[in-house]
Amino acid sequence: MKYGNIKITVVGLGYVGLPLASALSNYYDVVGYDTSKKKILELNKGIDSTNQLKYLEIKNKRLMFTNNPSEIKESNLVIVTVPTPVDKKNIPDISLLKNACKTIGINLKKKTIIVFESTVYPGMTEEICRKEIEKYSKLKWKKDFNLGYSPERINPGDKIHKLENITKVISADDDKTLQFLKKVYGKIIKKLHLAESIKVAEAAKIIENTQRDINIAFVNELSVIFSKLNINIYDVLKAAETKWNFLKFEPGLVGGHCIGVDPYYLTYKAKQIGYAPKIILSGRKLNDNMTRYLYLKFLNLLKRKNLNKKKNILLLGITFKENCNDYRNSKPLEFYKLLSKHKNFKVDVHDPFVDKREIKKYLNLKIIRTPAKNKYDAVVLLVKHHQYNKLNYKKLEQFGKKDFIVFDIKNTFFKKFKKDNIFTI
Amino acid sequence: MKYGNIKITVVGLGYVGLPLASALSNYYDVVGYDTSKKKILELNKGIDSTNQLKYLEIKNKRLMFTNNPSEIKESNLVIVTVPTPVDKKNIPDISLLKNACKTIGINLKKKTIIVFESTVYPGMTEEICRKEIEKYSKLKWKKDFNLGYSPERINPGDKIHKLENITKVISADDDKTLQFLKKVYGKIIKKLHLAESIKVAEAAKIIENTQRDINIAFVNELSVIFSKLNINIYDVLKAAETKWNFLKFEPGLVGGHCIGVDPYYLTYKAKQIGYAPKIILSGRKLNDNMTRYLYLKFLNLLKRKNLNKKKNILLLGITFKENCNDYRNSKPLEFYKLLSKHKNFKVDVHDPFVDKREIKKYLNLKIIRTPAKNKYDAVVLLVKHHQYNKLNYKKLEQFGKKDFIVFDIKNTFFKKFKKDNIFTI
Repeated sequence: MKYGNIKITVVGLGYVGLPLASALSNYYDVVGYDTSKKKILELNKGIDSTNQLKYLEIKNKRLMFTNNPSEIKESNLVIVTVPTPVDKKNIPDISLLKNACKTIGINLKKKTIIVFESTVYPGMTEEICRKEIEKYSKLKWKKDFNLGYSPERINPGDKIHKLENITKVISADDDKTLQFLKKVYGKIIKKLHLAESIKVAEAAKIIENTQRDINIAFVNELSVIFSKLNINIYDVLKAAETKWNFLKFEPGLVGGHCIGVDPYYLTYKAKQIGYAPKIILSGRKLNDNMTRYLYLKFLNLLKRKNLNKKKNILLLGITFKENCNDYRNSKPLEFYKLLSKHKNFKVDVHDPFVDKREIKKYLNLKIIRTPAKNKYDAVVLLVKHHQYNKLNYKKLEQFGKKDFIVFDIKNTFFKKFKKDNIFTI
Repeated sequence: MKYGNIKITVVGLGYVGLPLASALSNYYDVVGYDTSKKKILELNKGIDSTNQLKYLEIKNKRLMFTNNPSEIKESNLVIVTVPTPVDKKNIPDISLLKNACKTIGINLKKKTIIVFESTVYPGMTEEICRKEIEKYSKLKWKKDFNLGYSPERINPGDKIHKLENITKVISADDDKTLQFLKKVYGKIIKKLHLAESIKVAEAAKIIENTQRDINIAFVNELSVIFSKLNINIYDVLKAAETKWNFLKFEPGLVGGHCIGVDPYYLTYKAKQIGYAPKIILSGRKLNDNMTRYLYLKFLNLLKRKNLNKKKNILLLGITFKENCNDYRNSKPLEFYKLLSKHKNFKVDVHDPFVDKREIKKYLNLKIIRTPAKNKYDAVVLLVKHHQYNKLNYKKLEQFGKKDFIVFDIKNTFFKKFKKDNIFTI
């Protein structure tokens, strides 16, 4: 295959696709394609609702946005960045990916390369995606089109590790295609790693977040054991971390779109081939159960008081991660839901990052602007937003009734104030 | 309590106690006590069979060795470094620790501090050790004697992380004792971490090796899954390691006295208080099963040949870790035992580090000096001793028959030679 002018379509304009399309448009003609009309309208006005791109980056002359899939026909490189979530039973939900393949298939011209950046299990690109594309395009893989896989490693909110300086793994179904991808990605990314095969690159992506999941599950398990032994887990971690090779992980709630999801793609594939993963699934199970565990622990802490009386509770933070506004797959939100079912609890939620109107509209959840004074029987710190790090004890005390307690699952207040009414995980 | 001249007894002169006694004897009068007469005789001649100390270090004027426990009476600080292994059912075997407490109890004078460096589970120092000492000394804890805990972090064979520059965690049953320990250990160690309590220090030690165990179990589980998918685990790890926060661990056999043992102390205690650890035990189980898994994988590789005919097999490495001579709790040794039970296998073992006479005497295992030429149907690399890293393919080929295979569980030959007859884990 020979490529003249390189024209690229990026399919899916979320937190992965949009910055990628923008970066590529400094060197190539790029079409950003998304099924959401609302998103395309916004982007055409220069507005990025995910707050990642500036007006001028969106308004790059070589970057256009569309929800018309026939634009794909003009491209010789299509990059797919649609989400790959799990369903309620934690089974991979690849409907969005398959839809993208269908759309691409219908609009595919010969000699196009399709690269996937979505997290998938090993083999998905060359088995499932390939078949879908062949089916709708009536073209033949490796003869009429080629495939590549290059996992996204975007870390939303991270100011140090950004698209251009995160090493990017690239892989393809033949060497020529790999060299082409090297050329294209090499324009916008400093360091590339050429994987031995598409499967290797798929596997590499899936184990990265799974490793984090296991390590957080491990410290979560420790927190359960040490809590029973009346030992403060954070004191233990602080001591262990003085060893040169001890790895820093904190106990806590694992939600979001990556760490809590990717392991299920790997375990799904493993089960398919007859191996039931022990470590990975036990880690997943434990992390998924942490919300309930912490809820029960909180009830236990409250038992010092009369649980038959109404209790006012203040929750600090509701997003899945600190300093971000994303509450999809949020475990703090799950914690809130458990609390709100209790007939004697009246729960106020505070979060400085969340879009108050949006969350009211979609979840009917009211976020308070300022916690009331002397109101709360208990304050629960769920997310380490930087605003909470700065709070002093006097301010915190103002929110509470005279004998209020604090359940600080992030060791933020406990570490700083060392008060008897503050309890950690 | 007031301390005049500080006199120290170190109980147990293995790879932890001996270097510690030696370092302390540069500042204090130190007695090294061990129950082994042979060891005391050797040390009095200036010989350290573990090769850790030089003649002049052993011959320090302020350091004496004895197997007479009544020397303990002269000390105001006793440091216990006896081993704490597990039994065949992986239950903590604390008989050596209890014996040490008994010996100390019988010979204890008032105002002595006893510090434990052995790995224990949280609570063992203040519950079990304290009771044993009280029982045999008829003295009262905190009134007549005090306790401390300071976990050893010796890494045998490590030339960078040594006693004096490894941060040492110290803890004690009261602040005065802690300050005393700070003074003594501070003489020989650059950085100390003062833990909040003895339990915290005990817990910190036990989680360090458990974390390594879990992480190795995770990559071992990956190697099992990817092997079934015909994906090379080392290619995957190489790609994943290009991410800034991916942690480098290699699949392999976990043996020795720490990583394979410490987790069982934690799980024992956890079960005692009614919690069955999920992550930790699944990690332990997987790592313990790896030898058998690799044996079965090796049989599968050999099935390309006729397994009913005699096979000559060469094992490279038999110690629990590379570049050391220690074969206690060695998984490669376990692998050898599995092989040697097969009626059609004739197994030769090579290891440049092991004491050939000693292993012949204790295990009736003959270590060959040089592998024969053109003899072997299969070569198995079990331990990454530096001598094997240097081997070139021509040399390796000389050992094998014409169609020999190599099972390289450490990715040493595979990575270098990229040959079709070399298989990794």
